Amino acid sequence: MRLTVLAGGIGGSTFLRGLLKARPDAEITVVGNTADDITLFGLRVCPDLDTVMYTLGGGISKERGWGREDETWVIKEELAAYGVEPTWFGLGDRDVATHLVRTQMLDAGYGLAAVTEALCSRWKLPVRLLPMSDDRVETHVVVDDPDNPGTKKAIHFQEYWVRLHAEVTAHQIVAVGSEKAKPAPGVLDAIAECDALLLPPSNPVVSIGTILGVPGIRDAVRETSAPVIGISPIIGTSPVRGMADKVLAAIGVESTAGAVARHYGSRAAGGVLDGWLIDTSDAAQLESIATAGIHAQAVPLWMTDEDTTAALASAALTLAEAVRR
Amino acid sequence: MRLTVLAGGIGGSTFLRGLLKARPDAEITVVGNTADDITLFGLRVCPDLDTVMYTLGGGISKERGWGREDETWVIKEELAAYGVEPTWFGLGDRDVATHLVRTQMLDAGYGLAAVTEALCSRWKLPVRLLPMSDDRVETHVVVDDPDNPGTKKAIHFQEYWVRLHAEVTAHQIVAVGSEKAKPAPGVLDAIAECDALLLPPSNPVVSIGTILGVPGIRDAVRETSAPVIGISPIIGTSPVRGMADKVLAAIGVESTAGAVARHYGSRAAGGVLDGWLIDTSDAAQLESIATAGIHAQAVPLWMTDEDTTAALASAALTLAEAVRR
Repeated sequence: MRLTVLAGGIGGSTFLRGLLKARPDAEITVVGNTADDITLFGLRVCPDLDTVMYTLGGGISKERGWGREDETWVIKEELAAYGVEPTWFGLGDRDVATHLVRTQMLDAGYGLAAVTEALCSRWKLPVRLLPMSDDRVETHVVVDDPDNPGTKKAIHFQEYWVRLHAEVTAHQIVAVGSEKAKPAPGVLDAIAECDALLLPPSNPVVSIGTILGVPGIRDAVRETSAPVIGISPIIGTSPVRGMADKVLAAIGVESTAGAVARHYGSRAAGGVLDGWLIDTSDAAQLESIATAGIHAQAVPLWMTDEDTTAALASAALTLAEAVRR
Repeated sequence: MRLTVLAGGIGGSTFLRGLLKARPDAEITVVGNTADDITLFGLRVCPDLDTVMYTLGGGISKERGWGREDETWVIKEELAAYGVEPTWFGLGDRDVATHLVRTQMLDAGYGLAAVTEALCSRWKLPVRLLPMSDDRVETHVVVDDPDNPGTKKAIHFQEYWVRLHAEVTAHQIVAVGSEKAKPAPGVLDAIAECDALLLPPSNPVVSIGTILGVPGIRDAVRETSAPVIGISPIIGTSPVRGMADKVLAAIGVESTAGAVARHYGSRAAGGVLDGWLIDTSDAAQLESIATAGIHAQAVPLWMTDEDTTAALASAALTLAEAVRR
């Protein structure tokens, strides 16, 4: 069974662990978001790709959910001693080694897909991990400029997310470079030639949204013969994890499972979804989602451990079979 | 008192500590060798500048004599896990932070002198440290090619020195890029306008030799009104430290205090020395050095601790006064 998954960072990785437990023999391709990539201290950092790589490769910090287990922070301390900014992004020493290898390979002319493959070979990943694009796409967030009251400025998504904890109003989200980006080698084939395409409960705006925003990818999702099943990143009115509600507000989408489903839209009506899993506590929304032409089902959505996550992944695959055209 | 010192790595730094103890109020400019600089994992590494900076800034590993105290080696371990070469150069985590800052500033367009000044400001150096040049000069060593018997190949000095421990025959030493290099801002002035110019017991070929090889520097040394005093890096037939004998052999110079003095030559005869300190055990060579037009003196040359090194530095300054023209 060939499965393709569009994934952000922690939510996507957690779901993937459950999927691997549910279907250990599946041939899984992960298309990872790269729009929150950032260059820090000359190093190219790909937070979402690395979270998937470390999680599935066994190197992730279980406590933090990002970065490396047994991490040390000597470099961060030294950079601060040199007075180098920014200090708000946590680059651990083990993690820095990954970025050094990546940056050196990119500088040598390799594409991000090739670099990612090389990095993953160390981790013996049980999936194939592809960046959404070899081209640089960076999510910027338009916020009020505290230094110039009454005016706005665009900041890198990581500054908004990590430094400001999404606590300031996001007026607009812009994926800089997106319109010129091309899908990375293998991405369109992985979408066209799978048995099911899954959208885990990753951020619908800055993770899955930016993947779908790469020209060619949304069309491929619309046209694949595989069923496309999404899992709601919202339970009640809160994100399963992270601060998706803040960026949903910026694009005028309510933070409910139903509103996100309608935002993605039914494939029958030009959107990207065939099916949509929502939490049992949101079952009242099933009817309105069905009205939008999306096959919805209510199941336990909290990924509290690997078993419940595997059950969720199985439910997604069962729904995929049910809606297969 | 304005003193200018041409320095390699460990020998030069050790001498400088003695000099600072002997003359704490002197205004000292150090012109550092950069010909053993190397780019590793995309990071620009300047071993000699860093040894001076860490030693005089209090960050040096006293045990190793290079790199940082309280160093950790997580990055090195991770790079090896990724299978990245080379594994023979020891980049500690604290040290890597220095190279990250340097590389980022160089990539942003700053010259090495400006970058070095910025790095040194953290360490509150009691001297002004200048690279010999902002331009890239790299010492390569011609050795037998073990893969192609009968042929030779050029390898980076660090590979010869660190990986091969100078145990293979060096047929030739080439400072690649030297002929096009310009002295870094401030270097020629520091040589022209000092009260004494000192050549510590650094390597006469790959440290002081490459500094003098930058077009303009040797002429400035010849022409300065300050006395120029060198300290022999050889006692008996052995280097004070390191493997200077191996590279002296490559340029056809015997490993004795007198032969190195004649190699540098008397300023009166177009060389760079006015005075030369040799070890008391080598006193028999005094006469032949004097014949070459160089004022030589025999003093205890082993820099066993700061007091003996300060005494050596004082002897050099005393000799400078004696030969002042």
